[in-house]
Amino acid sequence: MMFRTAELGQRVPKSEFKQRVPLLRQELLEVQRKVLKLSKFPVIIVIAGVNGAGKGETVNLLNEWMDPRWLVTRAYDKPSDEERERPEFWRFWRDLPPYGRIGLFLSSWYSRPVLDRVHGLIDDVEFNKLLDSIIDFEKALADDGALIIKFWMHLSKKEQKKRFRELEKDELTRWRVKEVDWDNWRLYEKFEEAAERIIMRSSTGVSPWCIVEGSNRNFRSLTVATIIRDEINKHLDKFESATTIGHDISDDDGAEATEASETISHLKSTTVLDVMDMSLSLTKKRYTKDLQACQAKVNLLQRYARKHKISTIILFEGPDASGKGGAIRRLTAALDARQYQVLPIAAPTDEERAHHYLWRFWRHLPRAGKMTIFDRSWYGRVLVERVEHLASEEEWRRAYAEINAFEEMLADSGIVLIKFWIHVTKDEQYKRFKLREETPHKQWKLTDEDWRNREKWDEYVLAVNDIVEHTSTRVAPWNLIAGNDKRHARVKVIKTVCDQMENTLNARVKKWNEDK
Amino acid sequence: MMFRTAELGQRVPKSEFKQRVPLLRQELLEVQRKVLKLSKFPVIIVIAGVNGAGKGETVNLLNEWMDPRWLVTRAYDKPSDEERERPEFWRFWRDLPPYGRIGLFLSSWYSRPVLDRVHGLIDDVEFNKLLDSIIDFEKALADDGALIIKFWMHLSKKEQKKRFRELEKDELTRWRVKEVDWDNWRLYEKFEEAAERIIMRSSTGVSPWCIVEGSNRNFRSLTVATIIRDEINKHLDKFESATTIGHDISDDDGAEATEASETISHLKSTTVLDVMDMSLSLTKKRYTKDLQACQAKVNLLQRYARKHKISTIILFEGPDASGKGGAIRRLTAALDARQYQVLPIAAPTDEERAHHYLWRFWRHLPRAGKMTIFDRSWYGRVLVERVEHLASEEEWRRAYAEINAFEEMLADSGIVLIKFWIHVTKDEQYKRFKLREETPHKQWKLTDEDWRNREKWDEYVLAVNDIVEHTSTRVAPWNLIAGNDKRHARVKVIKTVCDQMENTLNARVKKWNEDK
Repeated sequence: MMFRTAELGQRVPKSEFKQRVPLLRQELLEVQRKVLKLSKFPVIIVIAGVNGAGKGETVNLLNEWMDPRWLVTRAYDKPSDEERERPEFWRFWRDLPPYGRIGLFLSSWYSRPVLDRVHGLIDDVEFNKLLDSIIDFEKALADDGALIIKFWMHLSKKEQKKRFRELEKDELTRWRVKEVDWDNWRLYEKFEEAAERIIMRSSTGVSPWCIVEGSNRNFRSLTVATIIRDEINKHLDKFESATTIGHDISDDDGAEATEASETISHLKSTTVLDVMDMSLSLTKKRYTKDLQACQAKVNLLQRYARKHKISTIILFEGPDASGKGGAIRRLTAALDARQYQVLPIAAPTDEERAHHYLWRFWRHLPRAGKMTIFDRSWYGRVLVERVEHLASEEEWRRAYAEINAFEEMLADSGIVLIKFWIHVTKDEQYKRFKLREETPHKQWKLTDEDWRNREKWDEYVLAVNDIVEHTSTRVAPWNLIAGNDKRHARVKVIKTVCDQMENTLNARVKKWNEDK
Repeated sequence: MMFRTAELGQRVPKSEFKQRVPLLRQELLEVQRKVLKLSKFPVIIVIAGVNGAGKGETVNLLNEWMDPRWLVTRAYDKPSDEERERPEFWRFWRDLPPYGRIGLFLSSWYSRPVLDRVHGLIDDVEFNKLLDSIIDFEKALADDGALIIKFWMHLSKKEQKKRFRELEKDELTRWRVKEVDWDNWRLYEKFEEAAERIIMRSSTGVSPWCIVEGSNRNFRSLTVATIIRDEINKHLDKFESATTIGHDISDDDGAEATEASETISHLKSTTVLDVMDMSLSLTKKRYTKDLQACQAKVNLLQRYARKHKISTIILFEGPDASGKGGAIRRLTAALDARQYQVLPIAAPTDEERAHHYLWRFWRHLPRAGKMTIFDRSWYGRVLVERVEHLASEEEWRRAYAEINAFEEMLADSGIVLIKFWIHVTKDEQYKRFKLREETPHKQWKLTDEDWRNREKWDEYVLAVNDIVEHTSTRVAPWNLIAGNDKRHARVKVIKTVCDQMENTLNARVKKWNEDK
């Protein structure tokens, strides 16, 4: 789920690559020089991920592009005698770069948790304990000023197979694919699950993961180098502003954020929204028939959920005029009015503004068996508040972890959580805006703000991509719905609600029967 | 172990109490008014701990001393229907005070983890998961600017019994002791263990626990009120300095720290060091006999540990001239020189200074079966660096958790860790300093710095008390050794090493045999 954003087939053509590299190398050397000159903090770069996704190549490239004298590269094999006789983290502590240097760590402390989990050598408890140790370790370093940048290089199962095949074809690279690589490939899903868990748990505010699509060499090289350059620059700024008089930190953060995001966004030419099939549609006849069928079903399921005291939360996000309201009305038309509540989320009230941003959502959680539908939601923090700079970069970055923790609590308490992004293309939105302008009874729906938001379309798209990357978890995955055809979207929404409710209810009832 | 600092019999006489209260109340009202006026953050005060230690009375008192209009007080009984139908934290979120207000929470989110653990309703995994949720919850609030102050009111088992008896004697208070209180009293050790775990895990940098001795009403009331006043003041300063131009945060922190600590130190007239029996001594004859016996034993144990590849780390802290060196030499005299290493910890080298402060200790961890003796240790961070303002308050406060995590890793990896504080009284130190001045071959041992450190005696004592409070964990308890009589101290040290090695070795060997 989480890796959807890294299976988009991102590419950078050779010509563009060649054109961009000289400046980027120069900039990398420049930030490296600055870190060395300041010598107040180390930079710790972790490169982990799927085999064949270019971990080793990336490390080699960075050694080529930067000044290797101030670069420490570490890869870890089985522990030596010396290492085995000491606590596991001894070797990592020993190898940490001093202040002013950059350390490149291949897999390193993430290697054992993944492998042991996949091969069933440790259970969930031990797995979580290992992750806790990692979090403590990274927090201690970050508290001490270290900049930690973590890359997870991703390949889909298909791409990984392709990559191994390619390597095997060439005499010179054949040695790089071992039997164990194929063995692991067959366990791909297990690896993916362990990886998701690791990324969710250890993406703390101080050391978030960057998931990088690994299939195209040019794309991943530029991505990694650009992120390193930008993160180091931001970190240098923080150190400088902490010692500069009269420097307003929060404003500065905002400015930096934009600059950095734009550069990365320039690379990310494809987002999860771009690969959606926006041509999906339904004929009127088919629509009428399907709608009736799935409305009947959702009514039944909601009565069943009510009986078993299972609550449901459904949230809708999407651009202005993407049809969220229409979809919600088609859904609620099928429900008993006493059992659901629709909450349109606009600007917070005074009372809400005087609390943590999640407080307003906590207060509206449904009672047992009820359904709450949020028309816009807590994702405002990482959408409008991010794009409009209402939240600082630190605040919205931290929000992914906060939201994941919040949603995990909902799921743990037995609530069914269903998340929708209803999407329309920019052209379709324009058409709908124009239609609203021209239709008297629809004019109220269109405000100046809608036009202003439209100007920031690309920034919103990037924010959505990040949302899917960071919050499409196993317990609460995102459903991206093509909304250019309203009929398709409405039916698809209700069908998805049915599927997700049905799955959860079945699993729950099965578990109850087993427990009895 | 951890609660040793809260079983010292701290008292505040009635006259002093009466004299101090008027000003303190005025100051409390003043900080409350400032928080309200600023209305940028809430204050969340958790009051948890042992029954009978005055939790309820403290809350009542604070309601009396502060302006109850801006105070929210919450106690939680069994969840209501409304509450049971939602995630557990729903009721806590709902009750959070808005920015500008102060919330008093009785036990609250800490209640269930303790009770469920004690009564065996949850296992360690679920217990840890609950604690993780609490940590996430508090972190989200603190990140949002909230000030969180947590008090753990403590009574020893004996004191609790006495307290219950007193309440039962009086017709008017008899109702307050229920059968369940006596049931719980009988489970006192289990409560203590759960409490220790909670305090260790959830004493994060953003929301540390203050352990308060609960037996004397005057003492605990003044302590709680003083801490609240000082913590709010510090928090207000942080908010102000973040918006004031040219305000150097770190310097300010240092100054604040001194001021606040001094006020609390004024109250804490008794520390763990004050209740030590410093008169312990050995006759020369007895010393010679005992020393020989325990040296023989430690030699045997070290050979046994070597054989079983169990490493040992022994660390020594204590005032200058307390006899650390002498004790170490008597210990090593009994050991095989190839098997141990003594590391005197002085100022860090250049290389060490360019790393996290724990790095220098990680690099010196012993190989399997070896022994490393640290003459001074990582506790320098919370001793000399704290007292001499070489570390900021934020840095040394965070260090308790870092040190606990570090020591837990050592213990988990199978290392035996033994910690000594060898104490001498201030008078005895003066005698030894003078003797060194007068004895030519001892003059090198005495430096100007020793005299300077002596001037800060009281600050060091307070720092030691905090160390015992925060780092005397089950896996690595502190051993406080009376050092006025060198013979007693030397024998006691070696005996303690023997006991602790023997216990660990026995447990380890037993476990191996069971595993076989």
